[in-house]
Amino acid sequence: MLPFARVTIIGLGLIGSSIARAVQATMPTVRLTGHDASPEVRERVRELGFVDDVTDTAGASVVDADLVILCVPVGAMGAVGAEIAADLPADAIVSDVGSSKISVLAALAEALPGATIIPAHPVAGTENSGPDAGFATLFNGRWCIVTPPEGADATAVERVEIFWKRLGADVERMDPKHHDLVLAVTSHLPHLIAYTIVGTASDMEEVTQSEVIKYSAGGFRDFTRIAASDPTMWRDVFLSNKDAVLEMLQRFSEDLTVLQRAIRWGDGDALFDLFTRTRAVRRSIIEQGQDDAAPDFGRSH
Amino acid sequence: MLPFARVTIIGLGLIGSSIARAVQATMPTVRLTGHDASPEVRERVRELGFVDDVTDTAGASVVDADLVILCVPVGAMGAVGAEIAADLPADAIVSDVGSSKISVLAALAEALPGATIIPAHPVAGTENSGPDAGFATLFNGRWCIVTPPEGADATAVERVEIFWKRLGADVERMDPKHHDLVLAVTSHLPHLIAYTIVGTASDMEEVTQSEVIKYSAGGFRDFTRIAASDPTMWRDVFLSNKDAVLEMLQRFSEDLTVLQRAIRWGDGDALFDLFTRTRAVRRSIIEQGQDDAAPDFGRSH
Repeated sequence: MLPFARVTIIGLGLIGSSIARAVQATMPTVRLTGHDASPEVRERVRELGFVDDVTDTAGASVVDADLVILCVPVGAMGAVGAEIAADLPADAIVSDVGSSKISVLAALAEALPGATIIPAHPVAGTENSGPDAGFATLFNGRWCIVTPPEGADATAVERVEIFWKRLGADVERMDPKHHDLVLAVTSHLPHLIAYTIVGTASDMEEVTQSEVIKYSAGGFRDFTRIAASDPTMWRDVFLSNKDAVLEMLQRFSEDLTVLQRAIRWGDGDALFDLFTRTRAVRRSIIEQGQDDAAPDFGRSH
Repeated sequence: MLPFARVTIIGLGLIGSSIARAVQATMPTVRLTGHDASPEVRERVRELGFVDDVTDTAGASVVDADLVILCVPVGAMGAVGAEIAADLPADAIVSDVGSSKISVLAALAEALPGATIIPAHPVAGTENSGPDAGFATLFNGRWCIVTPPEGADATAVERVEIFWKRLGADVERMDPKHHDLVLAVTSHLPHLIAYTIVGTASDMEEVTQSEVIKYSAGGFRDFTRIAASDPTMWRDVFLSNKDAVLEMLQRFSEDLTVLQRAIRWGDGDALFDLFTRTRAVRRSIIEQGQDDAAPDFGRSH
C-alpha cells in the first residue's frame, strides 16, 4: 500500500534529493515532481534525473500533489508556503524536514490556513550540500521525528509516518516543543560548538593555519566535518530555535567553567570522573546502532 | 639501514602496541621487548605476541635496549623514568609518545640525568585503549612531531626520526613550547570541549539519556567518539599542559560568547559569515590528506 501516489519535493539539496532518490528506490511507481529556487540546481536535477518533472515555479510543482515536502532552510518555509498557497490541492498534505519545529509549524500555519500540515524531521545528513550530495540510503536506520500539531488528522499523520518507514527510517512521534529541546541538545548545540572551535583555531596568531590543518588528526578534524555544514541552513536553525539553543549553551558554558576551574586547581579526580562517565555514552550509542562500531568512525588507516 | 636493533616499549596500550606491531611489520629483524605496569596487560600481550619478550619489571625491559619508548600517560613519565634509571644502558636513547612535551622533558631529565632524551609525539590514535586496540598502520600518513631539547645529539635525533619514518609517519621537528601550544589548539581543546558537551547532554532533566542517544546522529555522536578516549591519559594531558589549555579555552569562551550574542540579537549575517569561513577549513584538511574525503567520515549508510 503506497501512502502517496504523487509526491512533490521543494528544495533539491542534500535532503530533498535524498528523499527523491529513496522514493525512486523504494516506491518506484510514485510520480515525483521537484522544484528548487535556484535555476542552476533545477538544471542539474534535470541532468541527474531523480524526479520525473522539474518545474520552474513552486506553485506549478504542487498542482496535482498528494504530498508536498518542503526541504528548504527553516527561515524560508513561510515564504515557500506563501508561494504554493494558491495552487495547493485541498486534500494535499504538506510536510517538511526542518531541524526546528515550533517556528516551522507557525510559519506554515500562517502561510497555508486550512491546509493539512504534518511536520517531520529526519535526523540524518552529511556535511555536504546540493543535489549531487544526496543518496537513497541516507535515512536507513535513522530516526524521523514526526511532530503533528494538536488536533491533526490521524490518518494524515499515519500516512506521513508510513512514507518515512518506506524510506528506511524509524519513526517517532513527538510534541514540537519537546522536539526543539531534544534537538537543541543532540544537534544544534554540537553544531554551534563545532563552528566556534573551528573559528577559534583559525584565528590564532601564534599557531599558523597550516599547523592547525597539519596536526588536525589530534582531534580537531572531527569538528571540521560538522563545521562544514550548510551555512544558510544552520544560520536559520539557530535563529529559529533561539530559546532552546541559548538555554543549552548556558548549561554548556557552566559545565565548561567547572572543568576550567578543575584544570586550574589541578583537580585530577574531577576530570577523571567526567571522562569515565562520557566514555559510557559512546558505548550506548554504538550498542543502539546509532554509530559505526569501528574505531575512528571506520576511517581508512 | 635500521636505526635501532633492540627496541623496548614501556606501556602496551593503543599507542605502544601499535608501535610494536608497526615495527614487526616494517623492521622484522628488530628485537622487541615490552613491559606494562598491569599484570593483566602483560598476560594479554604474551598471548597476542607482538613483542619478543615481556618483562615483569620496567628495569628488566631496558637492560640491552638501544631505544626505549615510554608509552604511558604523561603524568607517569617521571615515575617510569625513575624505575628504569639504574638499568638503562649509557648509550640508549629514551623517547616517549606523550601529548604534551615541556612537562615530559622536564620529568625525564630529572629522573634520568645524563641520559639521551629525544621526546616525540605521533599525532595519531583512536578512541579505543589497551593492547587489543593497536594496529600496525596507525601511523601511516600521520605526523610525528619530534621535540629535541636544546643541545640534543644530532645523530640521536636523526635516528629517532628515521625510526618514525620507517613506521609510516611524516616527521616534523618542533620546539617543545611551540608543540604544546599547537597541540593545545588541534587536540587538547577539542577533547576538552567534547568531554564537556557529552557531560552536559547527560545531565539534562528535560531530555532523557535515551533520547540523547537515540537522536545523536544529529551531530552529537561525533563528539562522543573523542569523549570515549582514555580517561587517565587525558586527565594527565590537561594537567601537564595547563597554561596553554587554559589560554585556548579562554579564547574559545570569548568566541562562544560572541556567537551567543549574535543568536540572541538575531544577527544572521555574523553567523553566516563564520559558517562560511569554517567550511573552507574542512576543505583544506581533506586536500592535505589529513581526513577522509568521503562524506560523514566514510561511515557506512
